[in-house]
Amino acid sequence: MKADNSPARGMRDLLPDEVVTRDHVLSTITDIYGRFGYRRIETPALESIARLTGGQGGENEKLLYQVLRRGLPDEMAPDTTLAELVDLGLRFDLTVPLTRFYGNNAAQLPTPFRSLQIGPVWRAERPQKGRYRQFYQCDIDLIGEGSVLAEAELIEATTTALAAVGLNDMTVRLSDRRFLSALASSAGLPQQSWDRFFIALDKLDKVGWDGVRKELDALAMPAAAVENALDVIGQLQSVGAEKLVDVLANALPDLAENVLADLSVTTGCLDALGRDRAVAWQFDPTLVRGMGYYTGQIFEVAYAGVSSSVAGGGRYDKLIGRTLGRDVPACGFSIGFERIIDLVGNLVAKDGVAVLMEADVPIADALAVARDLRAEGRNTEIIPRSGKMAAQLKRLEAANFGSVVVVRREGDNTVTDDIRELRSTPSQ
Amino acid sequence: MKADNSPARGMRDLLPDEVVTRDHVLSTITDIYGRFGYRRIETPALESIARLTGGQGGENEKLLYQVLRRGLPDEMAPDTTLAELVDLGLRFDLTVPLTRFYGNNAAQLPTPFRSLQIGPVWRAERPQKGRYRQFYQCDIDLIGEGSVLAEAELIEATTTALAAVGLNDMTVRLSDRRFLSALASSAGLPQQSWDRFFIALDKLDKVGWDGVRKELDALAMPAAAVENALDVIGQLQSVGAEKLVDVLANALPDLAENVLADLSVTTGCLDALGRDRAVAWQFDPTLVRGMGYYTGQIFEVAYAGVSSSVAGGGRYDKLIGRTLGRDVPACGFSIGFERIIDLVGNLVAKDGVAVLMEADVPIADALAVARDLRAEGRNTEIIPRSGKMAAQLKRLEAANFGSVVVVRREGDNTVTDDIRELRSTPSQ
Repeated sequence: MKADNSPARGMRDLLPDEVVTRDHVLSTITDIYGRFGYRRIETPALESIARLTGGQGGENEKLLYQVLRRGLPDEMAPDTTLAELVDLGLRFDLTVPLTRFYGNNAAQLPTPFRSLQIGPVWRAERPQKGRYRQFYQCDIDLIGEGSVLAEAELIEATTTALAAVGLNDMTVRLSDRRFLSALASSAGLPQQSWDRFFIALDKLDKVGWDGVRKELDALAMPAAAVENALDVIGQLQSVGAEKLVDVLANALPDLAENVLADLSVTTGCLDALGRDRAVAWQFDPTLVRGMGYYTGQIFEVAYAGVSSSVAGGGRYDKLIGRTLGRDVPACGFSIGFERIIDLVGNLVAKDGVAVLMEADVPIADALAVARDLRAEGRNTEIIPRSGKMAAQLKRLEAANFGSVVVVRREGDNTVTDDIRELRSTPSQ
Repeated sequence: MKADNSPARGMRDLLPDEVVTRDHVLSTITDIYGRFGYRRIETPALESIARLTGGQGGENEKLLYQVLRRGLPDEMAPDTTLAELVDLGLRFDLTVPLTRFYGNNAAQLPTPFRSLQIGPVWRAERPQKGRYRQFYQCDIDLIGEGSVLAEAELIEATTTALAAVGLNDMTVRLSDRRFLSALASSAGLPQQSWDRFFIALDKLDKVGWDGVRKELDALAMPAAAVENALDVIGQLQSVGAEKLVDVLANALPDLAENVLADLSVTTGCLDALGRDRAVAWQFDPTLVRGMGYYTGQIFEVAYAGVSSSVAGGGRYDKLIGRTLGRDVPACGFSIGFERIIDLVGNLVAKDGVAVLMEADVPIADALAVARDLRAEGRNTEIIPRSGKMAAQLKRLEAANFGSVVVVRREGDNTVTDDIRELRSTPSQ
């Protein structure tokens, strides 16, 4: 009787053709990031439960897979709580592990440190089409660089990597958490409502201006202050790149000089990049990005025809300090790996050779034929002959083999026929 | 205050230089296996607890990381057992997931199916030096090939992969579970004690003949039968390759014809391989391999100077049937990935370019210099100038940079000095 062999709920198997595409994207991204000095690190999938529930992970902490302590008796003492049974969890992102990694290994790492992480994370989200409970993240982080060199380089590296896997017509959306704070402050919003204001603003894409206003009404924020803030946002949405800094300075007198200077440098670098590559940019005053730890510039990459962003990141100068004990400036950029895979499509090459082995051929002879082909650098698979030749050739072509060699027996000798192309010639 | 940033107990962080080595070994092995038609699949890290405790995993099932169901209240009902709280676990090997994968996806896979899996597994073993609770396994499996083409090809593919990462002087140790059964049967051992006899035999490496005899005595096996079996083993240990089949046939009249024929073909292929490559082989009558699911030939690769094997595998024709519902012949070979990494050593190349950026240089200018170097295919990292030049150059060399370019300011212009090699020239 056949058992149910589905993967666990919300998980999936990856077939060879899917892995080919993923490996191609992974190695392309890794090569480009390597060109910029970003080198891969790896941390364990499991982290201590205390670290994973420490508040850095925001909403993701609610989606945690918790792991039972080892060596517990199956019969529990009365009044045992779940929390007492658990000591580890599966990571839900690569940022919490990165801050622990840096805290643990800083003495052995250069300054600045360029980190690349690619690997699975786990979130017990409600399963839905195209979303999985195990998925890959791909993060670069530049730790120890306080200037916007970090922002400018991360944006160049990530858009270059995305272009290398075939994405063009990218637009970088840029903002700054310090701008958002100045906006809320200048508008007269009480500080305790800033976060909720930002969260509402973040939904603009989905719910439109009316939706945002409704949300803010429900939060009972001072209506005049809200309208002040929305008015400044309106001005900034229509301003040209060259006037951005002037308009910002006029509209928000509270905004610090260095925030304007930083924006001016980053946008200057983006202008220079745009002259070289098909990468546009815009200041987006409604860009918030969910995580609480951002402290400076924040950014996303939008790709033509895709509603959500394909990459996002920002500066987080106060996060490393929580693990290391002293603040170290840091800035990161995360590619939405699974979204990229969906965009890239199937990349399987038709290049393998099938060695079709008749049943009476000594195995050692078939192995020798294949060995010679492999020595020429050709991917070669030995397949026993079966059924009608025409049907088998059709199956081999469907399985993406590019050519075939038949190995057969004539009297006491093994004979190897000429190699034949399997690609169907176009009819003329 | 600095927190404890160690990884969870028994786990480890991998630094960039370590990942470089691992990635090199991984891509070399993947390339060679690809040459043989083995293509990567991926399965989720989490599998259902029922599957992971179904008996396929042997002793490894005791080392399982169990995952709590989601959405449980923190206060448990009285009399709740641990088992009721758990629905998933982390995989402890790649074989249990492979059999589920094949059961789930057989209709979309070719026959024969060549699978390559590389990825982490988790075992809550007692932590000890050099052993970790998360480690990589690297398995190839040939599913759907009933003849010893599978065995011969797996051995050639694996020894070729190991040679490509630098291992030479390998010896393949070969045996057959059907030989072991015939040995126990011919010696007169009662069938219910065969498994314990094999387990004792498997320890010969560690405890020697006296140790094995002591173990068998303790199990109260018929002494005469044990001596019969050990006598046959003694004969087979000293026999030359060319006489192997004759000696086996004489010593064990119960041994089926096809077992001898299979051994004859595999050893013939190994002889042919050995004429082409530095791969020796020997029949090892004490080779057992722990898992209960093997049904035919079993094999390991020994490497000069390493006491335990660097790879091992065998045929398991009855395992796929447990998930798929019908038997499909299968044979697999697993490389001890972490052991290989230890043997390979550090592979970090000295080839990066450091763009040393003086503090007054506009960031966009430094990015442009780096962009040109990257366009030439050079890995390039921008590093702010700091401290004494000689000391910084020394740090860059220690960090494995191969060359350096200084970008500085002269009046209103940015100047890029010539690129300089950092490799210390040998004194003459």
